[in-house]
Amino acid sequence: MSESAGVVLVTGARGFVGAHCLPLLAARGLQVIAVSSAPVQSAPGVTWRTCNLLDPAACAALIERERPTHLLHLAWITTPGVFWSSPANLEWLAAGAHLVERFFQTGGKRAVAMGSCAEYRASDSACREDETPIQPATVYGKAKAAMHLALQAAAQDRGTFAWGRLFFPYGPGEAPGRFISSVIAGLLSGEPVDCTDGTQQRDFVFITDAAAACVALLQSERCGAYNIGTGTAVSLREVTDIIVRRLGRSELLRFGARAAPPFDPPRIVADPTKISAEIGWTPRVALEQGLLRSIEAMKQQRGASR
Amino acid sequence: MSESAGVVLVTGARGFVGAHCLPLLAARGLQVIAVSSAPVQSAPGVTWRTCNLLDPAACAALIERERPTHLLHLAWITTPGVFWSSPANLEWLAAGAHLVERFFQTGGKRAVAMGSCAEYRASDSACREDETPIQPATVYGKAKAAMHLALQAAAQDRGTFAWGRLFFPYGPGEAPGRFISSVIAGLLSGEPVDCTDGTQQRDFVFITDAAAACVALLQSERCGAYNIGTGTAVSLREVTDIIVRRLGRSELLRFGARAAPPFDPPRIVADPTKISAEIGWTPRVALEQGLLRSIEAMKQQRGASR
Repeated sequence: MSESAGVVLVTGARGFVGAHCLPLLAARGLQVIAVSSAPVQSAPGVTWRTCNLLDPAACAALIERERPTHLLHLAWITTPGVFWSSPANLEWLAAGAHLVERFFQTGGKRAVAMGSCAEYRASDSACREDETPIQPATVYGKAKAAMHLALQAAAQDRGTFAWGRLFFPYGPGEAPGRFISSVIAGLLSGEPVDCTDGTQQRDFVFITDAAAACVALLQSERCGAYNIGTGTAVSLREVTDIIVRRLGRSELLRFGARAAPPFDPPRIVADPTKISAEIGWTPRVALEQGLLRSIEAMKQQRGASR
Repeated sequence: MSESAGVVLVTGARGFVGAHCLPLLAARGLQVIAVSSAPVQSAPGVTWRTCNLLDPAACAALIERERPTHLLHLAWITTPGVFWSSPANLEWLAAGAHLVERFFQTGGKRAVAMGSCAEYRASDSACREDETPIQPATVYGKAKAAMHLALQAAAQDRGTFAWGRLFFPYGPGEAPGRFISSVIAGLLSGEPVDCTDGTQQRDFVFITDAAAACVALLQSERCGAYNIGTGTAVSLREVTDIIVRRLGRSELLRFGARAAPPFDPPRIVADPTKISAEIGWTPRVALEQGLLRSIEAMKQQRGASR
């Protein structure tokens, strides 16, 4: 992707990852077409387009009009508590298959789309892209793994692709109802937070690092799946310990009060060797620092909304 | 599937496998809804419905109207020489994801859909459903492997499914341009037949056996992938030897005159242990007998068309 040429279509552009990708892409002087299902005010360096990607005809018309050379496909159902099992996962698979097919059919060269650690078979070992079996337990993980195959099929003999397997993103802009956003919101407002038992270990990746990984994958010409994770697992209780050190009120955290989600193995951690070696991406924001920035962002947001 | 109840929706009902499934299903006293993209004259025990499954709204309306309890999803792009690499594979994946989602959403209980040996990583060993890596080399194989995941996702917590991995079907009704149909047609008409080098070993399964496997899978409640193959590999030259013993004219076969297709490993053979042990299906028609029936069918067809 040269600095002077290239039209990048970003789906899910208002989403958690997408919103953090836009400024990174625009800063590279790329023509950024950000796609959203609802009208959005344009920002410098970014052109917004309204499109319901679940409508194949609308999606085809968008691709035909914009003729992107690059695609960053982030749109998917992500509603906390719902996305694991929602039938909408199948709709997003169908829409994604259409989208990547139209993209390469219309001359697109490079596509990056977002997968998940939920594609892997649960294991205490670090997940490796080309070794850990793909054996998703959830509707979400199955649909994502299917989308990876759809992307491979669409790109074959026509272009290149990377498939990012995102672990546990957190940071400013995180949706209400996710784990870290719920804990910070509860402690800030003085309201109890129902948690699972909290001993699960997860690989949390700060959102600007995740966005930088997406952009690095888009700029590469390497093909394949790449973990987007740090390689470090921490328990949910360790995360809350850090937040509590800043905000106090640990008595508000009710561990064990909430049922575990459908995909809840004891430990999920990335092996980030491949993305580091082949793409040159490494995370920059340490957990403590990232949680601090999450807390500050939520304080500002609460201040602004008063 | 009880004898008295059950509405079976069959897609790809005019296709090679589908056409042979219909009488088997009707003979069981099931209500058979056969779906085709073009109008077809009704046959006893089978109700035909015209539907373009690539149109999600039309597909949803069909499911809503018929409310099938069982689904046998065979429709896909199968055009000889084209299907391996066609972008239409992505369209069929999207359509299939919609279809299975609507089916289970509308109360469907049991779905069987058709995969392929092209999903497996090429290997001289017999392919085992849960051991041989899924590593498709072609657009077709990738889209089929994605459809398997889509089916798993759609069925989760709502119903049961089986995924048949079909090896190399042959027999009466085989499309022109496929290997065995081309050889028989060429020798019958006295025209040269361009072949690949012919040393490749394949697992050929007679079409009525393949259809019986589909029906057996539909009647079972087992979940998972099942090979539909015989466990015996023969080379293409061995196949032509049998045909030549019947029809002569071996000089018409030009081995090496035709480029190999995109997916052409030296040997592809099923391990049929799982479908035999769990479903009780075994092939009945030996290769020699099946080829004889293919020859007789094509002779009749040629006679009828004069």
